[in-house]
Amino acid sequence: MQLRVRAELVYGFQAATQVRASIEAALSADQTVISESLTAGGDQPLVRDFDEATGQRQFRTSLSGEAAIIYEAVVDNGERAPLPHGAREHLWSELPLDCLPYLLPSRFCPSDKFMRFAQREFSGLSDGGAKVHAVLDWLHEHVDYVAGVSTAETTAERTFVDRAGVCRDFTHLGITLCRSLNIPARAVSAYAWKLAPPDFHAIFEVYLGGQWWLVDPTRLSPVEGIVRIACGRDAADIAFMTTSQNCDCRKVAISVELAQP
Amino acid sequence: MQLRVRAELVYGFQAATQVRASIEAALSADQTVISESLTAGGDQPLVRDFDEATGQRQFRTSLSGEAAIIYEAVVDNGERAPLPHGAREHLWSELPLDCLPYLLPSRFCPSDKFMRFAQREFSGLSDGGAKVHAVLDWLHEHVDYVAGVSTAETTAERTFVDRAGVCRDFTHLGITLCRSLNIPARAVSAYAWKLAPPDFHAIFEVYLGGQWWLVDPTRLSPVEGIVRIACGRDAADIAFMTTSQNCDCRKVAISVELAQP
Amino acid sequence: MQLRVRAELVYGFQAATQVRASIEAALSADQTVISESLTAGGDQPLVRDFDEATGQRQFRTSLSGEAAIIYEAVVDNGERAPLPHGAREHLWSELPLDCLPYLLPSRFCPSDKFMRFAQREFSGLSDGGAKVHAVLDWLHEHVDYVAGVSTAETTAERTFVDRAGVCRDFTHLGITLCRSLNIPARAVSAYAWKLAPPDFHAIFEVYLGGQWWLVDPTRLSPVEGIVRIACGRDAADIAFMTTSQNCDCRKVAISVELAQP
Amino acid sequence: MQLRVRAELVYGFQAATQVRASIEAALSADQTVISESLTAGGDQPLVRDFDEATGQRQFRTSLSGEAAIIYEAVVDNGERAPLPHGAREHLWSELPLDCLPYLLPSRFCPSDKFMRFAQREFSGLSDGGAKVHAVLDWLHEHVDYVAGVSTAETTAERTFVDRAGVCRDFTHLGITLCRSLNIPARAVSAYAWKLAPPDFHAIFEVYLGGQWWLVDPTRLSPVEGIVRIACGRDAADIAFMTTSQNCDCRKVAISVELAQP
Repeated sequence: MQLRVRAELVYGFQAATQVRASIEAALSADQTVISESLTAGGDQPLVRDFDEATGQRQFRTSLSGEAAIIYEAVVDNGERAPLPHGAREHLWSELPLDCLPYLLPSRFCPSDKFMRFAQREFSGLSDGGAKVHAVLDWLHEHVDYVAGVSTAETTAERTFVDRAGVCRDFTHLGITLCRSLNIPARAVSAYAWKLAPPDFHAIFEVYLGGQWWLVDPTRLSPVEGIVRIACGRDAADIAFMTTSQNCDCRKVAISVELAQP
Repeated sequence: MQLRVRAELVYGFQAATQVRASIEAALSADQTVISESLTAGGDQPLVRDFDEATGQRQFRTSLSGEAAIIYEAVVDNGERAPLPHGAREHLWSELPLDCLPYLLPSRFCPSDKFMRFAQREFSGLSDGGAKVHAVLDWLHEHVDYVAGVSTAETTAERTFVDRAGVCRDFTHLGITLCRSLNIPARAVSAYAWKLAPPDFHAIFEVYLGGQWWLVDPTRLSPVEGIVRIACGRDAADIAFMTTSQNCDCRKVAISVELAQP
Repeated sequence: MQLRVRAELVYGFQAATQVRASIEAALSADQTVISESLTAGGDQPLVRDFDEATGQRQFRTSLSGEAAIIYEAVVDNGERAPLPHGAREHLWSELPLDCLPYLLPSRFCPSDKFMRFAQREFSGLSDGGAKVHAVLDWLHEHVDYVAGVSTAETTAERTFVDRAGVCRDFTHLGITLCRSLNIPARAVSAYAWKLAPPDFHAIFEVYLGGQWWLVDPTRLSPVEGIVRIACGRDAADIAFMTTSQNCDCRKVAISVELAQP
Repeated sequence: MQLRVRAELVYGFQAATQVRASIEAALSADQTVISESLTAGGDQPLVRDFDEATGQRQFRTSLSGEAAIIYEAVVDNGERAPLPHGAREHLWSELPLDCLPYLLPSRFCPSDKFMRFAQREFSGLSDGGAKVHAVLDWLHEHVDYVAGVSTAETTAERTFVDRAGVCRDFTHLGITLCRSLNIPARAVSAYAWKLAPPDFHAIFEVYLGGQWWLVDPTRLSPVEGIVRIACGRDAADIAFMTTSQNCDCRKVAISVELAQP
């Protein structure tokens, strides 16, 4: 599917502030960037980063005053197969080395605290794929999508108790439960077709049967409409904007549309 | 300095358990492994991992019943210069890409919660080196080394309130404060000469002036007596033993001695 | 039922320490103290407290060095009816004033965080008694009785995630869920017949249909074998021993036996 | 001083909701209510509560639709002496029985976690009054008054780390530190003269030298301008409005003025 994505961000900075922005479509194996443009206000040069393993990109710079960042791209996001129930779980010794960090607890995904719950609830199933689908079904049945109940500090533990949150919270809890089941899981930021209202989206992916599989724990956007930006341990790693000091977010406008065929 | 290190670990496993062990001296630029041997009980093969960027190693395998792991090495740990007060802080845009994760909050180091405290307490100082020394002095004055008050779940936030802990806790709080100051900081596991009682040691390192500098927030062991094992975001990444299910730790015996000159 | 209860506590104090001990059988409407004796080491006088509303007692004194406290009593604990499923829930405006605090969150029972979960899981039932029985069944099915996984700081929130704990933890989580359902619930300390191994026991009671009903969320001891000591918002209120500074608990020996008929 | 206080609250309720409102000036020994009026929308009767020990009042009722509550009073709040530095600390055995709960940790004041910090920081002083003044000075120096950084779930522990909050947060942290020093401390809700912008105010009081002393940890309003409403363990006990389910707060308008002399 070819999608045209656009992000317009406007921030106000009280002083010169270091920023790291992660908004560009990844040059990953599962999608192709057909065309793109990036402008970032300010007269400081951009340091452009590219990670070969994942194809993800970001830029770093320093901004002050009011600054706008605009990114546009046409991306062919290929075909994304849904996670099969029979996808096989790996022994730790079989995993690629760079999958191992995604078995560990992280800032918003304290999977070490959920071992007993995850074993109780999901371990009866034999295949990794079936376990992940059981986790997704559990989230769908037990957690409500509610805006305004969580904050930037909300962890999966809090969401597990509160039973409500937004895409970030569903993703954190889903990742946490998968890691508690010894299944590598990582957060993915994305542009998402048909997401309403349009915004950056947070989903996750699991490593089973020798590959990563994208899943959307909120069921708000079809996986085939996802344009991948970045992946990481949790929201801390994949924030679309990280700044060295507090600033004022004045506008975040996202659009995702079918490109002309 | 040439040091002879030895670790003997004995575990009891109720069922076949996947393990990841991080006990080998790193093949890092700042130390040389002169000789070593590793034996790990069990008939399953060991998968040996090596990370080129840091030189750190680990092995993965599956163990059952009672299993002993013994590692011995003679290591020349070179010369480790102490962190200068004048070590310069970097702009984000100047940092090597692989330093960036060490600016972010992690499971045991929720640096996002400490921004205001860190700014209040330490930001008056101009150089990064001076700030880190101020953090170390603050830890020394405000936190007691007390065994038994913390657990495997203890975060830097809890230690900040409790004002007591062991090496792991000092390290987590030190890392947290440095990251809150926008200084990259990561946890390091090590063999430590003169540590009493002998045990695996947790310290940390900060990235300033173009290099990583090791510091010991507990002041229990001289930095020149450190044999580095692994580094990571916090204790979750550098645990000497990670297992896929609960097991029974029966023995952890560590020794670190001067090798014959 | 007539029960002979005995508690022997031995503590070591480094300095003169203020203590509050809550170990005497309550002179409550639902039980009769037939005989009793109390000795508390030390030469300081005991201040004996009695609360008319609940009949509970405690004493306060100052202790130093090694001190033993011994309490013995024969108590007729009457007949304790089990909570009927049809016990009626009260409107707030119908409750006795002294029940109201037991609707509120407390140190170990953050019921404000569980509103959504409790409503989702238990609110379909019409009567208060049925709701409390549903809470007790839920605890029985979802939480394991495991010693050693919780500490004196463990809250109901942690237990809800960890799904394991001891009597104190079951009681805290049960209270929390009842309060989230707008049912007054309070912690009760007790001597418990047939509890193995013998120890102080923590259970709780709920206010429905115009009276308090004792329930044991662990199902470890029959409610008719309970000798009530004290009640309060949670374990902080009903601790058998509270001290003004750290001390060394050297012995806690409890026995509960049928008295000669 | 004679003060005219007025509160106007407007709420929207989706369904019949049980409410508890604590907005009436206390009939306490330290102030006199000269005249007052209370109207609460709705056709359900009000249950009016009065606590003899503290003089505090509240009412309970059931409300639905949009409902307004208006309270007006002229109160002579007498003379409130400032806490003397020499106010004497009591042994536990000397305290009135009803002071004891205010030594214990509560939902938002986990004083059990702060023992070591409080001892380290404040225990060098000999008198209770001096210790409380040191706590107040510490709060003034280390915590910023900032709206919007805390929520209804914020505990003193979070504020201690974040170093910012509003009156509720200052009060919780102040209470927590005092209890950690074995000084009884409780939260007080109040109308406060000269508070800008006008709102309900949260302060606290400590029991020293045989009486309770009001203190304002925010230093925003003079203690002599306080009209006391209620006291309790923390904000959970003294909320001006507690409801059995979520509702929509549409207006909270408070005024406090000098009455005609």
